[in-house]
Amino acid sequence: MIPTTEVKIRGYHLDFYGHVNNARYLEFLEEARWDLFENHFDPERWKAKQLGFFVVRIAINYRRPASLGDVLSIATHISHFGKKSAVFTQRIFRKADEELVADADITFTLADLKTGRAVPIEGELKEAFIPFCMDEGFESTR
Amino acid sequence: MIPTTEVKIRGYHLDFYGHVNNARYLEFLEEARWDLFENHFDPERWKAKQLGFFVVRIAINYRRPASLGDVLSIATHISHFGKKSAVFTQRIFRKADEELVADADITFTLADLKTGRAVPIEGELKEAFIPFCMDEGFESTR
Amino acid sequence: MIPTTEVKIRGYHLDFYGHVNNARYLEFLEEARWDLFENHFDPERWKAKQLGFFVVRIAINYRRPASLGDVLSIATHISHFGKKSAVFTQRIFRKADEELVADADITFTLADLKTGRAVPIEGELKEAFIPFCMDEGFESTR
Amino acid sequence: MIPTTEVKIRGYHLDFYGHVNNARYLEFLEEARWDLFENHFDPERWKAKQLGFFVVRIAINYRRPASLGDVLSIATHISHFGKKSAVFTQRIFRKADEELVADADITFTLADLKTGRAVPIEGELKEAFIPFCMDEGFESTR
Repeated sequence: MIPTTEVKIRGYHLDFYGHVNNARYLEFLEEARWDLFENHFDPERWKAKQLGFFVVRIAINYRRPASLGDVLSIATHISHFGKKSAVFTQRIFRKADEELVADADITFTLADLKTGRAVPIEGELKEAFIPFCMDEGFESTR
Repeated sequence: MIPTTEVKIRGYHLDFYGHVNNARYLEFLEEARWDLFENHFDPERWKAKQLGFFVVRIAINYRRPASLGDVLSIATHISHFGKKSAVFTQRIFRKADEELVADADITFTLADLKTGRAVPIEGELKEAFIPFCMDEGFESTR
Repeated sequence: MIPTTEVKIRGYHLDFYGHVNNARYLEFLEEARWDLFENHFDPERWKAKQLGFFVVRIAINYRRPASLGDVLSIATHISHFGKKSAVFTQRIFRKADEELVADADITFTLADLKTGRAVPIEGELKEAFIPFCMDEGFESTR
Repeated sequence: MIPTTEVKIRGYHLDFYGHVNNARYLEFLEEARWDLFENHFDPERWKAKQLGFFVVRIAINYRRPASLGDVLSIATHISHFGKKSAVFTQRIFRKADEELVADADITFTLADLKTGRAVPIEGELKEAFIPFCMDEGFESTR
């Protein structure tokens, strides 16, 4: 099952059209990625590796506005591995009717915190992510 | 000359790596677009048209981190017209050394505020944007 | 029992000292007030009254820093009624050790959405709030 | 002359009432304090002291709503010295008509970055702030 995170839309999320502001969606997506990490990765093992996640590209499509009181459900999976980068695909649904509100591809690198350089995503490192590659037939818009 | 907007990086823009947070960049880009509008469009004519700008897609590349005290310079131009959408390309430079910090393509529609439907970007409407199509040889990353 | 709301501290909440940013706490407090409303007020009755909540004063004490991964627990009650205003007292605790992280008094008015004028908080209106006046012996810092 | 900072209200500052959101004002106030520091303090001397500014209390009165396109002018001065704390009083005016939009008292300590302990604000340290104690007859609301 794809990990999901829920967010409820409050007044402070909205802009003056009464819709969730563009920048706020990136916080919702970040919340869902933290949620994934916390529930599925061993923080001690990550700390020992001295690696940081760095987002290098975000492509987000805003498909339907979300409004006050909507509960959004965010599904996150890994859709692509490059040599030194990988891509989280995240989809935000309105929970009540399962309509797609937004979807995004988040390209990240894993960088050595001392040198700042991206490391290859292979071997044990890649394996740690494999459980998050499952998708349910949604075609990435990237 | 391409319109530019400046933003100075303050403590509240930074995350715990000491870098500007991903979501905050979208606010900087929005600031630059408001700046462009205000200085180059006639608000009364826009109001009369009853049209709203709606962002439908943002693709942003984070190229270099920005840090406390950096002055960022944001250049904005229109790089593409579709039938019912158009694209702002925005580049964020560090003013001191002119290094590219981030660049983004912002796809927007103009929608009738009553019906919510996107209108064709043609004729007088398209002409209003033509002064903002100039670029200085930067190749869009879209 | 005093209504409580929980928030988990994520990377995007932190500033470059690694602490939750001052402004972000106001969002946490607003989240808790929305939570209270949603769970304890009848939205239809409120809509019919055409009244809006307007915050006129916030006094917040930052007592201990909150850090990545901390779960904060926010308790909200009404501590004071004026003629045309009332005060929510909100306390933010670190859930793990019940230490007080911040506490705030939020003074609000109820204003007629058409005239913008504050209405007296009395009769039926005041009664609606009485269930939220319970406290557990914490002395307001206002 | 009291140092002032200007902020122009944009769409992303507003909530769904069309007013600047409560939390956003704290960012405007922080912007004005950074501005003051940058223009009037020697960063090298501060760095050498290894002291950080920590806000321990904010009391803000929201007096008039600010709307899209308003230019806000923020005046900042020091209104009080305690033994180990001091208070910035900041007033936010609407530039066009000089109406008071909000005013705030920001209590801060100077803490040793190694021990985390507040240091006494006296001698050379206090003197550095004295140029910012000038006010123009506005009575603090604290």
